Amino acid sequence: MNGKTVSADPGKTLYEALKASGVYLVASCGGKGVCGKCRVRLLEGSAKVEATGKLLKKEIEEKFVLACKTVPEGDLLIEVPEESKLIIGDKIAVSKTKDLLQYLQSVEPELTPAVRRIVLKLDPPSIQDNTGDLERLKAALDAQDIRDMDFSHPFILAMSMALRGAAWDVCLSYTEKHEAIGLSAVCKAHHYGLAVDIGTTTVVVYLVNCADGTLVDSGITYNSQMRYGDDVITRIVYATEGGGLQALRDAIVHDINDLLAPMIERNGIDREDIDSAVVSGNTTMSQLFWGLDPASIREEPYIPTVNYYPVWRAGTSHLKINSQGPVYTMPSVGSYVGGDIVAGVLASKMYKNPEVALFMDIGTNGEIAVGNSDWMMTAACSMGPCFEGSGIRHGMRATEGAIESIRIDPSSFEPSLGVIGDTPPSGICGSGMIDAISELFVAGVIDQKGKLRSDLSTDRIRTGDEGPEFVLHRGERKDIVLAEVDIENVIRAKAALYAGVSVLLKEVGLTLEVVERIYIAGGFGNYLNVDKAIMIGMLPDLPKEKFSFIGNTSIAGAYLCLLSAQMRQEAEEIARKMTYMELSVSRGFMDEYMSALFLPHTDFSLFPTVQALYGK
Amino acid sequence: MNGKTVSADPGKTLYEALKASGVYLVASCGGKGVCGKCRVRLLEGSAKVEATGKLLKKEIEEKFVLACKTVPEGDLLIEVPEESKLIIGDKIAVSKTKDLLQYLQSVEPELTPAVRRIVLKLDPPSIQDNTGDLERLKAALDAQDIRDMDFSHPFILAMSMALRGAAWDVCLSYTEKHEAIGLSAVCKAHHYGLAVDIGTTTVVVYLVNCADGTLVDSGITYNSQMRYGDDVITRIVYATEGGGLQALRDAIVHDINDLLAPMIERNGIDREDIDSAVVSGNTTMSQLFWGLDPASIREEPYIPTVNYYPVWRAGTSHLKINSQGPVYTMPSVGSYVGGDIVAGVLASKMYKNPEVALFMDIGTNGEIAVGNSDWMMTAACSMGPCFEGSGIRHGMRATEGAIESIRIDPSSFEPSLGVIGDTPPSGICGSGMIDAISELFVAGVIDQKGKLRSDLSTDRIRTGDEGPEFVLHRGERKDIVLAEVDIENVIRAKAALYAGVSVLLKEVGLTLEVVERIYIAGGFGNYLNVDKAIMIGMLPDLPKEKFSFIGNTSIAGAYLCLLSAQMRQEAEEIARKMTYMELSVSRGFMDEYMSALFLPHTDFSLFPTVQALYGK
Repeated sequence: MNGKTVSADPGKTLYEALKASGVYLVASCGGKGVCGKCRVRLLEGSAKVEATGKLLKKEIEEKFVLACKTVPEGDLLIEVPEESKLIIGDKIAVSKTKDLLQYLQSVEPELTPAVRRIVLKLDPPSIQDNTGDLERLKAALDAQDIRDMDFSHPFILAMSMALRGAAWDVCLSYTEKHEAIGLSAVCKAHHYGLAVDIGTTTVVVYLVNCADGTLVDSGITYNSQMRYGDDVITRIVYATEGGGLQALRDAIVHDINDLLAPMIERNGIDREDIDSAVVSGNTTMSQLFWGLDPASIREEPYIPTVNYYPVWRAGTSHLKINSQGPVYTMPSVGSYVGGDIVAGVLASKMYKNPEVALFMDIGTNGEIAVGNSDWMMTAACSMGPCFEGSGIRHGMRATEGAIESIRIDPSSFEPSLGVIGDTPPSGICGSGMIDAISELFVAGVIDQKGKLRSDLSTDRIRTGDEGPEFVLHRGERKDIVLAEVDIENVIRAKAALYAGVSVLLKEVGLTLEVVERIYIAGGFGNYLNVDKAIMIGMLPDLPKEKFSFIGNTSIAGAYLCLLSAQMRQEAEEIARKMTYMELSVSRGFMDEYMSALFLPHTDFSLFPTVQALYGK
Repeated sequence: MNGKTVSADPGKTLYEALKASGVYLVASCGGKGVCGKCRVRLLEGSAKVEATGKLLKKEIEEKFVLACKTVPEGDLLIEVPEESKLIIGDKIAVSKTKDLLQYLQSVEPELTPAVRRIVLKLDPPSIQDNTGDLERLKAALDAQDIRDMDFSHPFILAMSMALRGAAWDVCLSYTEKHEAIGLSAVCKAHHYGLAVDIGTTTVVVYLVNCADGTLVDSGITYNSQMRYGDDVITRIVYATEGGGLQALRDAIVHDINDLLAPMIERNGIDREDIDSAVVSGNTTMSQLFWGLDPASIREEPYIPTVNYYPVWRAGTSHLKINSQGPVYTMPSVGSYVGGDIVAGVLASKMYKNPEVALFMDIGTNGEIAVGNSDWMMTAACSMGPCFEGSGIRHGMRATEGAIESIRIDPSSFEPSLGVIGDTPPSGICGSGMIDAISELFVAGVIDQKGKLRSDLSTDRIRTGDEGPEFVLHRGERKDIVLAEVDIENVIRAKAALYAGVSVLLKEVGLTLEVVERIYIAGGFGNYLNVDKAIMIGMLPDLPKEKFSFIGNTSIAGAYLCLLSAQMRQEAEEIARKMTYMELSVSRGFMDEYMSALFLPHTDFSLFPTVQALYGK
């Protein structure tokens, strides 16, 4: 309880009302009552609560409800448990952007956001000098050697009053393509931009001061498209066969606008002063953001509508910022390697170095790039949302309460848990699952196929609603378990990733030995234990010092492009340089995938470290 | 009665319902019940009829109503008298455009409308060639050496389906500024454009085949803005002080769309195939068409918002043609010399010849240009709508039933009338009024100030509702008169025009003698009797063979620009070349105007022909 008062539109669920006010709950299903994670407690007031099988009898007695299945019938007083809150690591974002800003300053002397501003002193009109307002403005631009400016109808509609209001001494905002976007009496000290990462599962928004590059605020929420499907394929099906294109477009744009609203309020910013945006997402997310039918992405030969997006206006995108502001979309490479990966390669800087590097973005999709300053090859594989805390019984993101590391005693099979924050565990995050599977494997609790052994003398192994499961934590209210189906999900995901890396390297005729550096991007942050990930065969068996964790590089690349014309240009160059390989039609991929559906792999020799441990 | 069936939206007046169906009635007040000219006869059915003082008792008994004051209450059978119908001379338009087309063909070998089309054969995508749709389209354009194409969001929204629907063999439409506007399976033989003349009083639309330049159809109606004021000044006041900007914008755009609708139906044309438009109007009309506040046009120092309009899209203008199509606006010179005059000078070709010419566009405003291929000077004066049949008791346009010429017997004072068409007279047009005033003056019925003499032995002079009047025609149902106030209106109008010419010539240090040619543009067509116009001091006293009547040059110039890039460029050059003189702040103008408020002028020596006639 923090005493925050939130107003709700009639008929909206508590989940939606909280979201609209900037209070984000965990809801990996996008708020359709499936994941059971948006639990809140009703203290006072009445509400229409839909029955759910996702709450225990005890929880129901304690007045817990799912916020997404609860519609207020008047004023409510509620308690939001810590584990239900979706929290972004603000400090991490701030320190990351400081590093990025330092990097930008080393590349370019000045920030070059997509919107520039210039002070123009016009000669006031007179009977002797009665040229039109637009021609007068053009003459002032001419005097500054700025020509070929484009003037939109909305700009001209507001121009005459703005010129007179400012007594002919104005600040003109215009895009780098010389499109006039606004006139004001003075060039305010600050103007702002949005960097947006549209992930399949989560959406991140940075509100950035384009005058000095500082991060003003940031926010994260689940991508509401989740309610229409967990992965890009089901959403494409929904868009094209279910007629849901508009709903998917609206969902993601509303998410961004909903994230932005409280930031604007908190920081006392005029919405009109946010005059540019950069959007980074995979190919499908970018198309859905712009309302482009993604049908051909899913059908052979898998063709995106656009890879290099024209710069359109914010009004066209429905982003609630200055409607004339340019929106830059990170360029895509192909149907399954999108702008987020171009952003990632940009942020990693691997395209600037001669050494061969491997880039992996681990999210709902696994995207891989290999190459250096001369060449680059890329591919994608579907991993499912398990590492983002979705599709796993007690999965959660790597926030407070998440089990992030586990040790299992090889004789007693009793686990000891590392939990984020000083709190009892409320779920398990991606790195925790990798740890758990690795430890269960090493301890002999699961076999090479990930099956739980039934012959061990421990009550940690039991049969739950979804079949065999291992109890990680016995909770007062609920136990936290890792089910065999969860383990299977993780094995499928890691197999897809490893197979992708193998096929890509084979395609370019290289072996793992030449790879000097491996960049791991995605939600893992710094939590992933490389040894454990190698143990389960998710990461290639290379020396630990070659691995770098670089976090959410999609938002990092978007941030760079928001502030720098050179970065926008380099992003285009990266996209052009990358050769795209379509894994779904590669015969080699399916073979590699099948071989990787074991712990760590059917070919033990690929994992000498693991082999040594087992003495095989 | 022609058996035409028209459907009406509930609550709409009969006038509006007929207009929406392409039946245009005379209504010089714009349909607000003031001019009393939209008389129709109710034969069957019931309607809500508002009382009006504009109909005689006898007419009311015969079931005549004003269409603008009648709302149908069910099916009606009506009769529309000939004199209530607004008719455009279709044959004149067709023969005129044939001449213009011939001229165009002598200038440029091919028509160059603002929208071009090109057939592009794209390589279909494959797994080996999986570039994005837009990049594939760009590659095909590249192969044709067409680069830097701009792609709007609406274009991209429709692109992928269009490419696949046409099996990668497409017709791309694009503007001369390289903006893609549409994709289709084939380049149809014909595509169309609109040339629009927005007059203060009337609106003319030409539907033109841009493939071969032929005039497909044309239409004329009163500018519905009339209901908000007769001249540009009252409309500016209404726009800025009355908050009526949007209403004025809607009125004119609806007029054009209403004119277009029946043309599309009649000619079986797909609206989407109309892919460009050219709009020609005075400065205020152009601004109102685009919804731009005209306030500063009226306030010293009289500044238009835009003289050289950017080319915006039809969707922005609300014209109901292909929404992506470019709309070119004829450039203006100053607040009171607009695109219609630039169009007129273009159509007159005077800017191509070394001889000094005088151009006069006589409408609600009188605009004057003087100059040659080296220089050009221009100014405008307000004449009021009297020559367009408005603001005159029995005024009408020069269509069937209009008295166009008059002789008055100097002894009996009995008039003999020349009427357009084989019909009894129903009103008097501009040329008729000039004839009448000239004849009344020569016969001594009116004095030099235009006052009717009360001492003559004729019952043609009597006192009517609006004071002294001269009965031109004794009608069965109504008499047709010329009132003293009508004569005063005409004298004020001709004085303004003559004063404008005088001041402009003085400004450039020239006299009338050097003027080799006088172009008379405007609604007069070929009906104006030059001798009579000189007699009343409206036109300068120059040899008759120097005068050329060139009709509606605003629409002619718009037609030229619709079909030719060179004409659009020459229009810009004309506008740049013209030096604008603001008469309203010229001390000389008011003196000249006062001197010209006589028949023919206070200085008789300026009119030697008239002087000779009087022996003065």
